[in-house]
Amino acid sequence: MAVGEAFQGQIHPVAGVRLATVASHIRYADRLDLVLVELAESAETVGVFTRNRFCAPPVELARAHLTATTARYFVINTGNANAGTGAAGRQAAETCCAALAELAGVPVAAVLPFSTGVIGETLPVTKVINGINAAFAVFSEDGWAQAARGIMTTDTRPKLVSERLTIGGKSVTLSGFAKGAGMIKPNMATMLSFVFTDARIERSLLQQMLNRVVNRSFNRITVDGDTSTNDSCMLTATGCGELTLSSLDSTEAIAFMQALDRLCRMLAIAIIQDAEGATKFITIDVNSGRSSEECLHVAYAIAESPLVKTAFFASDPNWGRILAAIGRAGIDDLNIEAIAVYLGEHQIVANGARYSGYTEAQGKAVMAQEAITVRVELARGDCNETVWTSDLSHDYVRINAEYRS
Amino acid sequence: MAVGEAFQGQIHPVAGVRLATVASHIRYADRLDLVLVELAESAETVGVFTRNRFCAPPVELARAHLTATTARYFVINTGNANAGTGAAGRQAAETCCAALAELAGVPVAAVLPFSTGVIGETLPVTKVINGINAAFAVFSEDGWAQAARGIMTTDTRPKLVSERLTIGGKSVTLSGFAKGAGMIKPNMATMLSFVFTDARIERSLLQQMLNRVVNRSFNRITVDGDTSTNDSCMLTATGCGELTLSSLDSTEAIAFMQALDRLCRMLAIAIIQDAEGATKFITIDVNSGRSSEECLHVAYAIAESPLVKTAFFASDPNWGRILAAIGRAGIDDLNIEAIAVYLGEHQIVANGARYSGYTEAQGKAVMAQEAITVRVELARGDCNETVWTSDLSHDYVRINAEYRS
Repeated sequence: MAVGEAFQGQIHPVAGVRLATVASHIRYADRLDLVLVELAESAETVGVFTRNRFCAPPVELARAHLTATTARYFVINTGNANAGTGAAGRQAAETCCAALAELAGVPVAAVLPFSTGVIGETLPVTKVINGINAAFAVFSEDGWAQAARGIMTTDTRPKLVSERLTIGGKSVTLSGFAKGAGMIKPNMATMLSFVFTDARIERSLLQQMLNRVVNRSFNRITVDGDTSTNDSCMLTATGCGELTLSSLDSTEAIAFMQALDRLCRMLAIAIIQDAEGATKFITIDVNSGRSSEECLHVAYAIAESPLVKTAFFASDPNWGRILAAIGRAGIDDLNIEAIAVYLGEHQIVANGARYSGYTEAQGKAVMAQEAITVRVELARGDCNETVWTSDLSHDYVRINAEYRS
Repeated sequence: MAVGEAFQGQIHPVAGVRLATVASHIRYADRLDLVLVELAESAETVGVFTRNRFCAPPVELARAHLTATTARYFVINTGNANAGTGAAGRQAAETCCAALAELAGVPVAAVLPFSTGVIGETLPVTKVINGINAAFAVFSEDGWAQAARGIMTTDTRPKLVSERLTIGGKSVTLSGFAKGAGMIKPNMATMLSFVFTDARIERSLLQQMLNRVVNRSFNRITVDGDTSTNDSCMLTATGCGELTLSSLDSTEAIAFMQALDRLCRMLAIAIIQDAEGATKFITIDVNSGRSSEECLHVAYAIAESPLVKTAFFASDPNWGRILAAIGRAGIDDLNIEAIAVYLGEHQIVANGARYSGYTEAQGKAVMAQEAITVRVELARGDCNETVWTSDLSHDYVRINAEYRS
């Protein structure tokens, strides 16, 4: 049911990364639900995590482990988010990390746990450990497609992107995968996203790079305004390739950041294209605001309005609902007479009212498309922001009414 | 499709108020869509209006007229919100007021216009004026039921409440009606609400009373988080009855305020019971917060979460979604270990995890009911707030996808 095409390019393995995916029967029989990632000793990993105050025990543990040492393994399960599980949930996550650490002969803190699925149920530790044992025997440098499938929950298709390019005469590879289709309004990261490169990049620089790109990708998407308890976005530089980066300002770093930006944006967009029940992919550009913050307020007011989202589902150019959302976005001194709104290439609003040249036929033609851009010109400053979202369909309600029942 | 019973009591006319309702074919044939209200010369009227920056021309005009003089007439139309219509919309609203003023022999500013319906279309002024002419001939002191029906849009039933009581040996009557089923998150007022009493109350005191009650009624409801462009909540004291109030602190005023509070809360609750697609009526109590503001943040995060709302629609006690909503409500120093959550009379969360005594059967039993209370104890202060909301059903999507198409 996803909107648009999935990534069609070649998936390049990343030197220094091996993957293993198995079915460990956590929630469903015979469904890939456990992924292990093994990283080279030279790898540096950084992450950004949910700002939801009810962050899940595996998120707390991953954050603590990342502070303590360098990550060598990820253990990722679906079917159970191990969230809202308190002290017992922390213990369960630790036990799983310890099992993998023992098999691999690394410190427990070198293992980072990630969980996604239903909130509030006890993690079936024995099943996870059995899965870890099985997966540990099947690591492969080519396990990307299976891993991307193995982290899915309500996703209808895997989200896997890859790019190999040459920077300053040196080859560099970036590949990554993500999952997420509902409870999506990442606040520092999306549900689960893993990006890897073979470049050598020291940790504080890598963290700066990640912080910068998430604010142009994962932190700019919303399905339902619901920030997950388990959001984690990880970036690993294995140091096993040719390229070394040591500052943000070098020509090589700028080229690398552009590629990283493309990759993360493709993953973020893939999440929205596969949003629960989505029939439309909607880009909201809010331009000429006084601050990024106010542009984002307006963009999210539109993107999260159930009335705007149902109008998109109905392919109805009901621009009055867009105006109403802009008007309640919290900008107290907004001059509505100055605002312009565009639907696709057509101006629909000028001076706070319907643009004289706009026709309903123009609006209907744009709305009939799968991918739609709304552009708002606030005409009060130089800041611009873009947010991506989906529509609100019968299937969104069906999926979320049926899920867990 | 509304939840629960409509108001069953007697509707008492209010001395000094006459009403007239006709079908003027604004959007649909043969549907009551135009209501006139005539107020006695002694009447004082106050209002609170939408804070949406895109407030509709009739709202701007009603506010301006109210400042200029004392209201003698309301002209209320449905089918067209006259919003997002700019200068032409202001002109249209003025023309309608002028037509009624001329018929009645009062200044134009003594007429307050109210419009509700589709946003962004030109008000058909000639139809409205024909309707005004027809209605002016049929004013009646008993026209309450028709008027409550005449302001409906996607409402499935009229919202009309009334109370006659004796205060300090004097009889006083309060009657009121409201409309609204979607685009409901009033910010100072609800879609359209009109409350009348025969007491004599001077204007500044009347405004204080209204401001106080809306923050315990209309400003505590949400269907979809979408604040309308046309919200208006009016309170009229005709001064034609026995009771006179001159301060907020008198025993009589306290008794009157309690009745006014009951009435406004009944109207606000009637809107939620009839919310678009509603199958559940949900009360969210957030207690022991440090401020009203943080209690409201938590209450609205729960009330507006599409995931929580679909879980309610599915009668699924998916308390993990409630926890996730609390966690993203913006209280940065929230201690999740201290929080308790109750579903109906059953505790479901203690210490940030499932309460040990909670069973799924308890949750399912509460969820099977039409009216459900969620109580959150933040355990960090003395402030409490209550918000009312509805669930998110297939019918919500259907109604809002079909409306205007």
